[in-house]
Amino acid sequence: MTAYILGLIAALEAVLLLIPFGIALVLGETTTYSAFLITIGVLVAYSVPLIIKRPKNRSYRARGGFVVVALAWIQLSIFGAMPFIISGVLPNVIDAFFESVSGFTTTSISLIANPEVIPSSLIFWQVITQWIGGMGVLVFVVAIIPKNEPAAVHLLRAETPGPQFGKLVSKLKFSARILYAIYIALTALLVILLLCGGVSVFDSFTLAFGTASTGGYSYKIASIATYNNLYIESIITVFMFIFSINFNLFYFVLIGHFKQAIKNEELRWMFLIIIFATSAITVTNFIESTYDTFSESFRHSIFQVVSISSSSGFLTADFSKWPVFSQTILLFLMFIGGSAGSAAGGFKVSRFAILIKTGICDIKKSISPRAITGVKMDGKLISNTITASVASYFGMYILIIFASWLLLSLDSSFDLFSNFSVAVSTMNNIGPAIGNGQMINFSDYSAFSKIILVLNMFIGRLEILPIVMLFSPKSYQR
Amino acid sequence: MTAYILGLIAALEAVLLLIPFGIALVLGETTTYSAFLITIGVLVAYSVPLIIKRPKNRSYRARGGFVVVALAWIQLSIFGAMPFIISGVLPNVIDAFFESVSGFTTTSISLIANPEVIPSSLIFWQVITQWIGGMGVLVFVVAIIPKNEPAAVHLLRAETPGPQFGKLVSKLKFSARILYAIYIALTALLVILLLCGGVSVFDSFTLAFGTASTGGYSYKIASIATYNNLYIESIITVFMFIFSINFNLFYFVLIGHFKQAIKNEELRWMFLIIIFATSAITVTNFIESTYDTFSESFRHSIFQVVSISSSSGFLTADFSKWPVFSQTILLFLMFIGGSAGSAAGGFKVSRFAILIKTGICDIKKSISPRAITGVKMDGKLISNTITASVASYFGMYILIIFASWLLLSLDSSFDLFSNFSVAVSTMNNIGPAIGNGQMINFSDYSAFSKIILVLNMFIGRLEILPIVMLFSPKSYQR
Repeated sequence: MTAYILGLIAALEAVLLLIPFGIALVLGETTTYSAFLITIGVLVAYSVPLIIKRPKNRSYRARGGFVVVALAWIQLSIFGAMPFIISGVLPNVIDAFFESVSGFTTTSISLIANPEVIPSSLIFWQVITQWIGGMGVLVFVVAIIPKNEPAAVHLLRAETPGPQFGKLVSKLKFSARILYAIYIALTALLVILLLCGGVSVFDSFTLAFGTASTGGYSYKIASIATYNNLYIESIITVFMFIFSINFNLFYFVLIGHFKQAIKNEELRWMFLIIIFATSAITVTNFIESTYDTFSESFRHSIFQVVSISSSSGFLTADFSKWPVFSQTILLFLMFIGGSAGSAAGGFKVSRFAILIKTGICDIKKSISPRAITGVKMDGKLISNTITASVASYFGMYILIIFASWLLLSLDSSFDLFSNFSVAVSTMNNIGPAIGNGQMINFSDYSAFSKIILVLNMFIGRLEILPIVMLFSPKSYQR
Repeated sequence: MTAYILGLIAALEAVLLLIPFGIALVLGETTTYSAFLITIGVLVAYSVPLIIKRPKNRSYRARGGFVVVALAWIQLSIFGAMPFIISGVLPNVIDAFFESVSGFTTTSISLIANPEVIPSSLIFWQVITQWIGGMGVLVFVVAIIPKNEPAAVHLLRAETPGPQFGKLVSKLKFSARILYAIYIALTALLVILLLCGGVSVFDSFTLAFGTASTGGYSYKIASIATYNNLYIESIITVFMFIFSINFNLFYFVLIGHFKQAIKNEELRWMFLIIIFATSAITVTNFIESTYDTFSESFRHSIFQVVSISSSSGFLTADFSKWPVFSQTILLFLMFIGGSAGSAAGGFKVSRFAILIKTGICDIKKSISPRAITGVKMDGKLISNTITASVASYFGMYILIIFASWLLLSLDSSFDLFSNFSVAVSTMNNIGPAIGNGQMINFSDYSAFSKIILVLNMFIGRLEILPIVMLFSPKSYQR
């Protein structure tokens, strides 16, 4: 069964590679043309033996689901790196793998020194990896498999971010299809809006894919600042926010439960966090004369706040030059991240809310031990099991950031705190990181450090468990 | 009852002030002589009306205990600041209060530019505040009150650090007396050992008090490096470690339960952490040529590791010039701190162990949901309530560090990460902090930032709850 699913995913990747291959064909990009062709060939040769025989045993235990998800993502990234190596754009195997992982996990750190001069088809491949990584590759597999597999629930639970997993409709296959339909529709809408704003067809697609996945990849060195266009910035700001909202809410809106969507507590927390952060940064940057006018300060602040808190990482300004207070807020937003069940990374707003409420509840209990208190979300009492698991998830999450920080510090390229900022940025799948008063150039890291960063990106995107379980011998015991 | 206890503590402080007053008298330090006299006078005038009538109602609820502890520590620090103000050494009220809080909480950051030229009696007052703060002032009060007060348990629980509170013998008063007897005996032993090493009487006492409290205050600008003496360094290293061990273990040794003490799991974790950190730093510093010989590298590494992990903060070397990996390890040691029930600060080793075990246990549960697993310490299963409260304590602890970091970043004196290092150092009652490749000079902070740091030091020493409850209106409801 594991082999079958991995085969399916390899076949899917081959199909996805047809898109950049087509682009390379049309634009006559001969170097990448062959690179894509070879990769597709390898994928076909790899996947056909695996999917030709459908397995009889279609059931899975929970732990099997986690392991498959981890293997699927690693396999995707290995094959996804091939076009970079073969085309010679990133001949170093580790660099190419890093680039591929950075794409699929929607972190979007590029090691390519000048992405503006590389073939367009390769850029397009980069944003496709992000787009599929944003919603999840197993969600896609579940959506396309013909029957409702009993194993699907474990796969989706392992891949979907957030403290709780809820399916939209009774059949998982349809839940997955609904999610992808919403994802495709919103991405298409964004492409159209960008085209209306006078953006070129190629840029509209790459920007839309980068925004939808909350990857935030731009092949322009100056990112969104290149366009210097208020319309484009506004559209992207709105859509970065939209794609960091729990997708279940869009479904509620579709089936007419508008009130249920708007009353969602996590959404309210997100609004509050963005309003607070934007106001604080706008005022600080204006007072400290980073920008001449208040409106310019607001424009850059809101864009950067939404870009970071949705874990996109698009830039309109070099925030490493902003006042310390503004930088600190942005760093905190990296931790919090977007909503559970969205394309965004980070610790997730709902977990953050539960964590704070658990703390307050514990203090209340200390004040009046006999009082009946509990943690509520959306008006419903949350079980102690979930509050405890959120708190313990926070513990593991912080310990992993610290462990990777420690391992990165073996690399003497950067100072004490640059490594911290890098660990936070990769673990939360953001992208940009600050160190020594400027943006970090990731290609200065050693091969060992890049492997640590790859692990961080996987762990962040898959929320710890799949990667940990992949390396745990217990997962393979009967 | 609250007023009575606060009065007792004020009277106790007046008695303690007689020591530096006597020193000032003997050495003929006229400025501090009057400063101490005035402070003692004010304390007597304040305390007599409070303690003259013993209250009838001697019971307390838990929340009352927390509030009293918070008030007691703030009151101690306010009166403790008076000698600094009156003598003119720190005429600024906030600076003097900061200095006093830094003493009582055993953080030992000094705002005095050159402590080597200030009167000896004032230096002695600084180390007395640390010494009493190390073991706890309410432990002292409970030890000296004539009867076994029913309220005492709430007071001790609120003041003693660690995830669980256990009394040594059935009567709390005797538990408190045993703790102080051990504390005094060990401090006396340290004084004698230092005197034998040729240290002057004054320095022996100040160093012993600074070591016993894990405060780590030295009036020498170069701290312990001034002496450049292997014997002194070794003695202080051993004693810093001893004073960061749970004091209950010394009691077990005293009553002959030597095995029980040596088998203690927290102690083993401490050893492991120190051995790992010392080896890693020794090797790194040697390889990166920070020191010429391996033995010199070891000498400075072990001293700094024990100094930081016991939350003392004594220095034999400027570790801001050490390799990044060594600095990162030291920063992590600040978080972990010493043992529960010791004089040390930080998150505490036992909490750290429980947190890691809870994470592993949660992963195991995800792998095999039906397996019966639990978190064990010292071979005994720990209840879910405690593991959940440790995880939620970790959440609050990290959120408070981050909140203070954010507030410190309003101060533009330091960069993004210096403030982080300062927040970590004060919250864990360490002292030294690194920023921009050098040690932080705390006097550069604004008055507002100093107040934040004062709150951090209190919150760190009293482990969050007392300070939070002091500001919570619920604590005062019937």
